[in-house]
Amino acid sequence: MLVDGKAYRSIWLAADGKTVEIIDQTLLPFQFQVARLASLGDAARAIRDMQVRGAPLIGATAAYGVWLGLLQGTTDAHLRQIADELVACRPTAVNLRWAVERMLSLLLPLPEASRREAALAEAGLICDEDVRTNEAIGQHGSALIEAIWRKKGEQGEVNLLTHCNAGWLATVDWGTALAPVYAAAARGIPVHVWVDETRPRNQGASLTAWELGKAGIDHHLIADNAGGHLMQHGMVDLCIVGSDRTTASGDVCNKIGTYLKALAAHANQVPFYVALPGSTVDWRLRDGLAEIPIEERSQDEVRYMQGEDAGGMVRRLAIAPKQTGAFNPAFDVTPAHLVSGLITERGVCAASLEGLGSLFPEQLHD
Amino acid sequence: MLVDGKAYRSIWLAADGKTVEIIDQTLLPFQFQVARLASLGDAARAIRDMQVRGAPLIGATAAYGVWLGLLQGTTDAHLRQIADELVACRPTAVNLRWAVERMLSLLLPLPEASRREAALAEAGLICDEDVRTNEAIGQHGSALIEAIWRKKGEQGEVNLLTHCNAGWLATVDWGTALAPVYAAAARGIPVHVWVDETRPRNQGASLTAWELGKAGIDHHLIADNAGGHLMQHGMVDLCIVGSDRTTASGDVCNKIGTYLKALAAHANQVPFYVALPGSTVDWRLRDGLAEIPIEERSQDEVRYMQGEDAGGMVRRLAIAPKQTGAFNPAFDVTPAHLVSGLITERGVCAASLEGLGSLFPEQLHD
Repeated sequence: MLVDGKAYRSIWLAADGKTVEIIDQTLLPFQFQVARLASLGDAARAIRDMQVRGAPLIGATAAYGVWLGLLQGTTDAHLRQIADELVACRPTAVNLRWAVERMLSLLLPLPEASRREAALAEAGLICDEDVRTNEAIGQHGSALIEAIWRKKGEQGEVNLLTHCNAGWLATVDWGTALAPVYAAAARGIPVHVWVDETRPRNQGASLTAWELGKAGIDHHLIADNAGGHLMQHGMVDLCIVGSDRTTASGDVCNKIGTYLKALAAHANQVPFYVALPGSTVDWRLRDGLAEIPIEERSQDEVRYMQGEDAGGMVRRLAIAPKQTGAFNPAFDVTPAHLVSGLITERGVCAASLEGLGSLFPEQLHD
Repeated sequence: MLVDGKAYRSIWLAADGKTVEIIDQTLLPFQFQVARLASLGDAARAIRDMQVRGAPLIGATAAYGVWLGLLQGTTDAHLRQIADELVACRPTAVNLRWAVERMLSLLLPLPEASRREAALAEAGLICDEDVRTNEAIGQHGSALIEAIWRKKGEQGEVNLLTHCNAGWLATVDWGTALAPVYAAAARGIPVHVWVDETRPRNQGASLTAWELGKAGIDHHLIADNAGGHLMQHGMVDLCIVGSDRTTASGDVCNKIGTYLKALAAHANQVPFYVALPGSTVDWRLRDGLAEIPIEERSQDEVRYMQGEDAGGMVRRLAIAPKQTGAFNPAFDVTPAHLVSGLITERGVCAASLEGLGSLFPEQLHD
């Protein structure tokens, strides 16, 4: 996507051909800074500290991380160690494991001498595939938006609500939940997005609002608390969110708070869609609540908040008494029965084994 | 309640007998500062800028505001002007109107010469009544907590979840939603409170956490997004919140986000109680969603966040891009069917006209 007129992806091979560059997302929306990943440690740190985040981008970064790790050695043992280090960075996102396993199964059968080159090519391929996948999600999802637009008699705007950031910054380009928004806007449909702030890390306020602003999409920031009220009053036509891991039965694990919005959408007959690449489906799982490990992050993410002061300096402030501890689960699980449908690169389907199986029949062999 | 060993109410007549003192709640939990209200303008500003907040405390402050206003003149016209200025400060809380109307109906029939003295006495009476009311709410509500404690076999803790601040800082003393917690703790029941941060103004993180800490009650701060996840996993035994206005039919208007927690409680069979003084019931209303005006506050409450820096200075930081606008409804309405019961000073009842009518039969004359 364009940033002030220049086209960017969220990750790319640097001009030196030896390192990888990313946008440091911990500094957005206040500073647009490119960070360089020169080693496996850099890649692991970028994932862990959330300089990169979003299931598809985590996967892409891990793929490049495997390549960077191979620069230090190419043996089987070293390769497995690289894989372990990367997979341990974030426990919930399944794309991380998916990308690392894809790299391993390609590289382990190869002679050591050709592993580096193959890893670099495969990481690039994963990125290019992600871009194509998200473009397809955008096309399928924008048809849903267009249908609502026609149903409204092509009056006013289509009001969407999204949680967290599942935009181009969460992927290599285009995004998952926001790809349909960008595609609909490109087709001339007037869209307006309610952007959930998404505490505690504020990815909505800092990343989604930034993305939408750069793309010229009409939007308003709201507290995470406000979505239910908006839906009660008919101010939301459609919810679209992303997913960090989806069970084969259609349960959706996504950023903490997604479940509350799904409950409100269900109670107020607002369609609730989840946009995800097929790589986000964990085909081994049938019960999201019981089976998906939920990452607990530092309590300081809740106890402090980051922002920019009047002088343009990015600072951190305490928002609670010093003695008060916090509990910080990073994701929750929305049961399939609250999900109106899944928007994938192969089309839209019901949030169920039957629905997903109809689009990804090759996954149902077990 | 005690603050570092000294007993405080949230509002009191100053030692000079001519002014009123409050705790400036916009500075908590970072600074404990007493502010002086010397005029009607001071009182109105304290309500509008939320130095005082919480339906019962707003009512008490408005009562003292009428007295302060009378210091500038005691005619009927002046009295009505005072009332109009105060009622306009916050549109949603019904106690504000209730307190002002109570003052008017007492004062208008009196000769001008005795109005000041009568107003001062009545404001004090409203405060004392509020304290007694909340003590009674505490007793009735703590019986619910004790019943859960017995049902759990007196093992572990009773885990409560609360939203915003309906503690002693929201009232003159004891609180509404937190009164049962304080009463249960005083009876030796081990309680633990999940404290919703309560964006955008963070009354949970700043006021409820501070209150509970000072009272030695076990608690953890959580993002507003986390409550649904906790309830899905059996980590919440009981929700108790306050109310800014309750319809005669039991619909509850409370801080934005309350509705989302009520939906999650209902979906997960967690009891969801609302603690409120009878003065919070608007007996004229039957449909909360249609009839209660929802205050929209400044978008900057969402776009900025206040906190304390490492040097102990209270600052404000931008958390979103400068160009991003926000929408900031301050309250939402939880329909009666999601409410397990209402805890009032006269006992616990169903959230319905029948339930409220059984406790407040004198209100059903119309």
